[in-house]
Amino acid sequence: MAKKKSAKLKARLPRGFVDRGPSELLAMDRMLKVIKDTYELYGFEPVETPQFEYTDALGKFLPDQDRPNAGVFSLQDDDEQWMSLRYDLTAPLARHVAENFDHLPKPYRSYRAGYVFRNEKPGPGRFRQFMQFDADTIGAPSVSADAEICMMASDTMERLGIARGDYVIRVNNRKVLDGVMEVIGLAGDEHAERRLTVLRAVDKLDRLGVEGVRLLLGEGRKDDSGDFTKGAGLDDKAADVVLAFVEAGAETAAGTIDNLRKLIVDSTVGAEGVEELATMAALFDAAGYSDGRVLIDPSVVRGLEYYTGPVYEAELTFEVKDEKGNPVRFGSVGGGGRYDGLVSRFMSQPVPSTGFSVGVSRLMAALKVLGKLGDEEILGPVVVCVMDRDTESLSHYMRMVQELRTAGIRSEMFQGNPKQFGKQLQYADKRNSPCAIIQGSQEREAGEIQIKDLIEGKRLSEEIEDNKTWRESRPAQFAVKTENLVEEVLKLLKSQEQDRQKERES
Amino acid sequence: MAKKKSAKLKARLPRGFVDRGPSELLAMDRMLKVIKDTYELYGFEPVETPQFEYTDALGKFLPDQDRPNAGVFSLQDDDEQWMSLRYDLTAPLARHVAENFDHLPKPYRSYRAGYVFRNEKPGPGRFRQFMQFDADTIGAPSVSADAEICMMASDTMERLGIARGDYVIRVNNRKVLDGVMEVIGLAGDEHAERRLTVLRAVDKLDRLGVEGVRLLLGEGRKDDSGDFTKGAGLDDKAADVVLAFVEAGAETAAGTIDNLRKLIVDSTVGAEGVEELATMAALFDAAGYSDGRVLIDPSVVRGLEYYTGPVYEAELTFEVKDEKGNPVRFGSVGGGGRYDGLVSRFMSQPVPSTGFSVGVSRLMAALKVLGKLGDEEILGPVVVCVMDRDTESLSHYMRMVQELRTAGIRSEMFQGNPKQFGKQLQYADKRNSPCAIIQGSQEREAGEIQIKDLIEGKRLSEEIEDNKTWRESRPAQFAVKTENLVEEVLKLLKSQEQDRQKERES
Repeated sequence: MAKKKSAKLKARLPRGFVDRGPSELLAMDRMLKVIKDTYELYGFEPVETPQFEYTDALGKFLPDQDRPNAGVFSLQDDDEQWMSLRYDLTAPLARHVAENFDHLPKPYRSYRAGYVFRNEKPGPGRFRQFMQFDADTIGAPSVSADAEICMMASDTMERLGIARGDYVIRVNNRKVLDGVMEVIGLAGDEHAERRLTVLRAVDKLDRLGVEGVRLLLGEGRKDDSGDFTKGAGLDDKAADVVLAFVEAGAETAAGTIDNLRKLIVDSTVGAEGVEELATMAALFDAAGYSDGRVLIDPSVVRGLEYYTGPVYEAELTFEVKDEKGNPVRFGSVGGGGRYDGLVSRFMSQPVPSTGFSVGVSRLMAALKVLGKLGDEEILGPVVVCVMDRDTESLSHYMRMVQELRTAGIRSEMFQGNPKQFGKQLQYADKRNSPCAIIQGSQEREAGEIQIKDLIEGKRLSEEIEDNKTWRESRPAQFAVKTENLVEEVLKLLKSQEQDRQKERES
Repeated sequence: MAKKKSAKLKARLPRGFVDRGPSELLAMDRMLKVIKDTYELYGFEPVETPQFEYTDALGKFLPDQDRPNAGVFSLQDDDEQWMSLRYDLTAPLARHVAENFDHLPKPYRSYRAGYVFRNEKPGPGRFRQFMQFDADTIGAPSVSADAEICMMASDTMERLGIARGDYVIRVNNRKVLDGVMEVIGLAGDEHAERRLTVLRAVDKLDRLGVEGVRLLLGEGRKDDSGDFTKGAGLDDKAADVVLAFVEAGAETAAGTIDNLRKLIVDSTVGAEGVEELATMAALFDAAGYSDGRVLIDPSVVRGLEYYTGPVYEAELTFEVKDEKGNPVRFGSVGGGGRYDGLVSRFMSQPVPSTGFSVGVSRLMAALKVLGKLGDEEILGPVVVCVMDRDTESLSHYMRMVQELRTAGIRSEMFQGNPKQFGKQLQYADKRNSPCAIIQGSQEREAGEIQIKDLIEGKRLSEEIEDNKTWRESRPAQFAVKTENLVEEVLKLLKSQEQDRQKERES
């Protein structure tokens, strides 16, 4: 710090990263607690992995990434090995399980919340560091594990306060999609890229509708801005098969599954996928989740490449306005699926697994829209004002604060420049403090302390503006004996809490 | 996942990174909660910054780092700007405050826990990702803010269960150190490097003793392995001044401050530092913290380069064994100090600030040694065993689980391969489950369910080994009516909890 620079540094965050303040952190804490409690109730236990992994251990499973390591923050360690910041919580979990396989209970049911990183172009609501909250069952061969996680996803939504009908868990199966590919002659490694193009087209059904998807399945599509997206080059017959499958959803799960059975007769893997969906539908039915909470929906794709069986998506179905003011569905807030190949990349045995990931930031945004989160009032500390600045007076104020803290009262001595008394009260107001404690030399001689009720002060000034009186007012400032400070502050806090309680009830 | 590789990937973590399991995470949660509650009580509010910052915004303040960016994980963004993972939580806070200065309350009192990253050679207990838990008061000119944070550090230790006498908060002042440099003729930019060598020598007093430090202040020192460390090249007289200062600690704070006053007469900045220590000592005295909880100690240095005034260190004074079995003090678990220049790097005005950082992992290790943390028993879920695997039976088991969960009982259906019943019970044991629920076709026809009490089972087998009976045993397995499942499980859980309660009390 010895050298002075003439040009000051600019304080700014890199694009795609954000800071979070008290009310957002409180809301996030509350939300994470509900999710954690739900996952715990379902028998999952916590695990945490670090934010770096070897790049090869993470693998390359991000959607829409053609360059190696694109989308991922990577750097070379001093032994020349490449490390990457995790882009999701599933790939690191697979590494963790493979590394500790003998010690872990099997199946291994775990959950974890944590930040993941994407080296992408940031945009509105698109961050380069964001939080996911995952639960996974590793070593679970039956789709009953997938069904359980879908029901847990549904329970999670409801425990967060999202009403039944405002969300849906949509379920599909990658094997059914593979079966469709087989039927239209796109099986085999040599068609991998075209398959991906077909999947991406299907994934856009929500946004583009059937005709838009048909164009993307065929020659291609020009969007409103004139940009042309090359299609998968399917002929009309093949496109019809894909679209029939995408639109196979019926009124009931049984109807949907019947439609799929008819479409997939020529594919063993496809038929297997349909029967897995049928089993899951039966389990949803038995547990009462087929009342609209969980839906079999053949149009669900999921972007990540490692899924091998059931895939599922938690979608919020209520409408919000988009940037142009048009009503749109809020959309996906989480999803997951079966990834039977991910752990066994490291192992000489198959390790069938399934898991679900909540997009914490998106879900928080949704809960704010619904008024379920983010309107908590955070009460600040009691502020002891500094009227005299000599060490003896400071000691005196500090002892007051200590008395208050010993009684469990959140409090502090004003630590800014105490010259202007008004700034101290402004500070207390900004912190939403319940009261300020004031003792100048005069009060001290009289053995008294002034308590300024800041909440009452605000209320009174609002009443004067409103021109109506809510109730008989408390005095906004009053004197108490020095020895009664704690007792009187506690009394005031209690009275303020009762007021808030009444207001919440009214 | 389409291509198969003949050579399997090795599942391994990069050096210096670790995974954490349920009991460590539970212990960490509990510890963080205590620290958070203490910081909140003192009036601090939470804030969170992301893990990346622009490299220039972080600055280069790590100790012992001569190369640019050494010690820090950095990478170039696609607009060619350098970004780094934060190496502490103070530099990002300074950026945050400067960026949001107008909106924040002043002083701005905030806390935050988070991972920081050091690109260093990992070693035993030395990680490349570790957690810090900081509290800072920004915009606080008086050392009463530093004193308050020292007292909070003391309270934090005691609230975590560390007994008075097992820890001490040591306080010094960089201005006093600067004064010593002035007295021995090492003021000014041209002596920056030698000053650093002197500070590093003083910092080793604990490990090397006075004579070792004297060698490092003079020509240099050869250690036991024969490695030679070049010294600061001070003559004997200068070394005497430094050592007199380092050893100025007396029985009482007043004595120490008297000693310092005598040593620092020729330096304005040094005298200022001593008077600041005197003010802090008076405040500690007034608040009762001078009973050994907080000590004025002229040998405290602190490694980071950005400190400008009071520096403080939380040290655990009880002894543990080192690698060679020798008793050593546990040592530092946190520290901090005043950094008046850090925020103003970005601003056109001075922003005096002070803050404290807890090393979460080291403190956790200490609490484990003290038996204050980490021995919590984590109870697993109730496990509903899968005896029949047809979809109807699975539906039936799932409904049982759902009933249990609806009653708030943590539970799950066994999701592994159900072929071997023994593996299901092994799984339940490994999860530390309270009981297993068993219903084969025979029990189902009879309208009954078997409940296997796994805790009692363990106890009974221990008793058989011990050859003594603790109390009348519960039946380790019993049948209940299907419709009484929830009620009977609740009864069992309550009875097990009573046993645990009795055992804790005995």
